[in-house]
Amino acid sequence: MRKEETSMKIGVLGTGTVGMTISTKLAALGHQVTMGARESRNEKAAEWARKAGGKAGHGDFPRAASDAEIVFNCTSGGGAVAAVTAAGKESLKGKILIDLANPLDFSAGTPPRLLFHGEDSLGERIQNALPDTKVVKTLNTIAADVMVNPGLVPGEHDLPMCGNDAAAKARVTLLLREWFGWKSVIDLGPITASRGMEVYVLFWVHLMGALKTPVFNIHVQRKGA
Amino acid sequence: MRKEETSMKIGVLGTGTVGMTISTKLAALGHQVTMGARESRNEKAAEWARKAGGKAGHGDFPRAASDAEIVFNCTSGGGAVAAVTAAGKESLKGKILIDLANPLDFSAGTPPRLLFHGEDSLGERIQNALPDTKVVKTLNTIAADVMVNPGLVPGEHDLPMCGNDAAAKARVTLLLREWFGWKSVIDLGPITASRGMEVYVLFWVHLMGALKTPVFNIHVQRKGA
Repeated sequence: MRKEETSMKIGVLGTGTVGMTISTKLAALGHQVTMGARESRNEKAAEWARKAGGKAGHGDFPRAASDAEIVFNCTSGGGAVAAVTAAGKESLKGKILIDLANPLDFSAGTPPRLLFHGEDSLGERIQNALPDTKVVKTLNTIAADVMVNPGLVPGEHDLPMCGNDAAAKARVTLLLREWFGWKSVIDLGPITASRGMEVYVLFWVHLMGALKTPVFNIHVQRKGA
Repeated sequence: MRKEETSMKIGVLGTGTVGMTISTKLAALGHQVTMGARESRNEKAAEWARKAGGKAGHGDFPRAASDAEIVFNCTSGGGAVAAVTAAGKESLKGKILIDLANPLDFSAGTPPRLLFHGEDSLGERIQNALPDTKVVKTLNTIAADVMVNPGLVPGEHDLPMCGNDAAAKARVTLLLREWFGWKSVIDLGPITASRGMEVYVLFWVHLMGALKTPVFNIHVQRKGA
């Protein structure tokens, strides 16, 4: 296939490290990426679009979501529900939203605290806010550089994923392989498994401190795997 | 060395699956294990000691801790601080306490909730309750059967550990290798890393649900490992 045939319209909500890394990689792959921010005149998003050139665009959250075939939520945990709600329930209807956000509270410094005890999760809250959207939680358990380049980590390692729509998870699994090279996805079940995937990030933070690098990931060893 | 020379006096606090599994394995290795419960006439502990035979004993928490060279805390998260406090600050002075407890709240059913957000941890609370004891948090991230037999899980996999006393962690690392066969321990740093190790257990719970087996563990893949 020629590049034109595989080019997709992708919305990325968030202008932090994760949003930048995902957007830059997808734009480099030839996709039409629109980076969304709370304000349409966000300087970071505008600068990113200028540098990325070509089909890259930017705007507010509704702008990033409206034309997109698939949307990444890369906003911070505290603002994620407001961001996806602002993006628009109607324009996200029937679409896949890949949720990468983590419910971390850095207000007391690092290491951060968790916003939820595991009795609730950001993934569920986002799915509840967008009942007609297929929310797939994944990529939240690794550093941004590893998200788009799993080969940075040696050996076999796994990407946890959850969501209520099996077909959406299957599609995202294929896309993550094609776009970024992810070979092994572990389906943890419905979106409620976000409760486990999100608190894991605090373990990740301590592991990063001990290993002195964010470039790592886990491989789940079990019989018959 | 003959068995007598390597036999240790070990106290195990807790009569649940974890306490039973640890006690049974250590008794089978020839150690003098005393299982401790809240009440000295705990039927489960008495039955365990009868079945284990030989040098196995049982009693209340102070009894299990008083003669021990090393103590395992295998009590439930909600009762752990009370249990180690009852065991006795004085008789645990200078000793290593291996803390396996997880701060899970099953009062609303499964999956459980976490008692802490990661702003505090059971490991730290236990260390604070026993300032002169060397608390080493480990073995809390796997199923009981895997704790004493890591070979059940195929391939390389890792055991997280944390604690404030480097020599105590080094000793526990050697003992876990000798007793149970643990080949790879990852030192996450001081006891505050319990914040990450304890919330990880909620991720483990969801992973177990997806894998449909508790017999698994993680291998941390990183450069130069």
